[in-house]
Amino acid sequence: LPEISDPHEIENKSFEIIEGLLAGMDLFGPQKAVVMRVVHATADTDFASAMVFSEGSVEAGISAIRAGCKVITDVNMLKAGISSLDRAGRVSCRISDPVTAALAKESKTTRAATAMRLLAGDMKGAIVAVSNAPTALYEVMRLVREEGVRPALIVGVPVGFVGASESKEELLGLLEVPFITCRGRKGGSPVGAAIVNALIKLAG
Amino acid sequence: LPEISDPHEIENKSFEIIEGLLAGMDLFGPQKAVVMRVVHATADTDFASAMVFSEGSVEAGISAIRAGCKVITDVNMLKAGISSLDRAGRVSCRISDPVTAALAKESKTTRAATAMRLLAGDMKGAIVAVSNAPTALYEVMRLVREEGVRPALIVGVPVGFVGASESKEELLGLLEVPFITCRGRKGGSPVGAAIVNALIKLAG
Repeated sequence: LPEISDPHEIENKSFEIIEGLLAGMDLFGPQKAVVMRVVHATADTDFASAMVFSEGSVEAGISAIRAGCKVITDVNMLKAGISSLDRAGRVSCRISDPVTAALAKESKTTRAATAMRLLAGDMKGAIVAVSNAPTALYEVMRLVREEGVRPALIVGVPVGFVGASESKEELLGLLEVPFITCRGRKGGSPVGAAIVNALIKLAG
Repeated sequence: LPEISDPHEIENKSFEIIEGLLAGMDLFGPQKAVVMRVVHATADTDFASAMVFSEGSVEAGISAIRAGCKVITDVNMLKAGISSLDRAGRVSCRISDPVTAALAKESKTTRAATAMRLLAGDMKGAIVAVSNAPTALYEVMRLVREEGVRPALIVGVPVGFVGASESKEELLGLLEVPFITCRGRKGGSPVGAAIVNALIKLAG
């Protein structure tokens, strides 16, 4: 049945195909490695032109990982996708926490945004990765601008029809913290996981 | 900052937009509900025309869930995405199991395919959902055809450049077990989770 079943061969063949699909695009070095992993995870070449990296963002992510940083995620799917750091206890997500649910209901906002507020004290030097909830990304930007919170890097790739694109356009104007994002409605946990996993690989 | 932060309002607004985007397509009833949830999860309307349902597949999934079935997944991201059943202990994934890793190495295949083989005894009446590894989907089809394994439903939506599309074309020819799939390279854990979560919702 399957022509190729060796996992290394599958990955090598995939990256060879992706290399061909992205030929001629203006992509280099570690940014290209991140983009290739996102295209690999989604099989969607649209991401190659949609992704935006603030200056020094890849380097900031690599340094943070080497320094043993935590990763904070908005949803459990993204946490599960960063499996090497998750197994090491370095990934936090509080969306399923009963405290989060109660507070979210009280303040009539999403559990994802509330979870970000609850983890603000852990964000210094961390990678904050938001793959699903625009409200969570808006809350992270508010924490940065109004409360002086300073993650090492924001990976902001929420997906959807209401607020996702707008929240990412807002992120493009953030000056205080390096970020990696993608324009448009598309995004999601495989995109967020691919970005963080590419940084982990680059960090060696 | 965000114009809408009430989670119910966000979801209602999203489904209103999706309803508009899919207007004029040949979609009805419970199949339409499943397609809409996939488009909601991915913000990618391509899935509306790519999805394929075998006859009675949605009904088979709903009945299985009502009967208290287990769900077997190829990857942990998909398991995490089926949160209501996962919290109830009804979702199994063995990709991270040390036994799986050892056996996969021995037989030079993927951990995802090996995990399917190890869970074959639990597949009767279950929903088997494969969102990432074509090798896992091929192994499920082999179990069905050669070993008489009979899940209630196969959700087969692997993503990628090597084997994903081919494995799903193969699934389109499966007669023994109902299936839900999508043509082409795209797929992934948000797609698999959206399909199963839509079935859970339809099961009430």
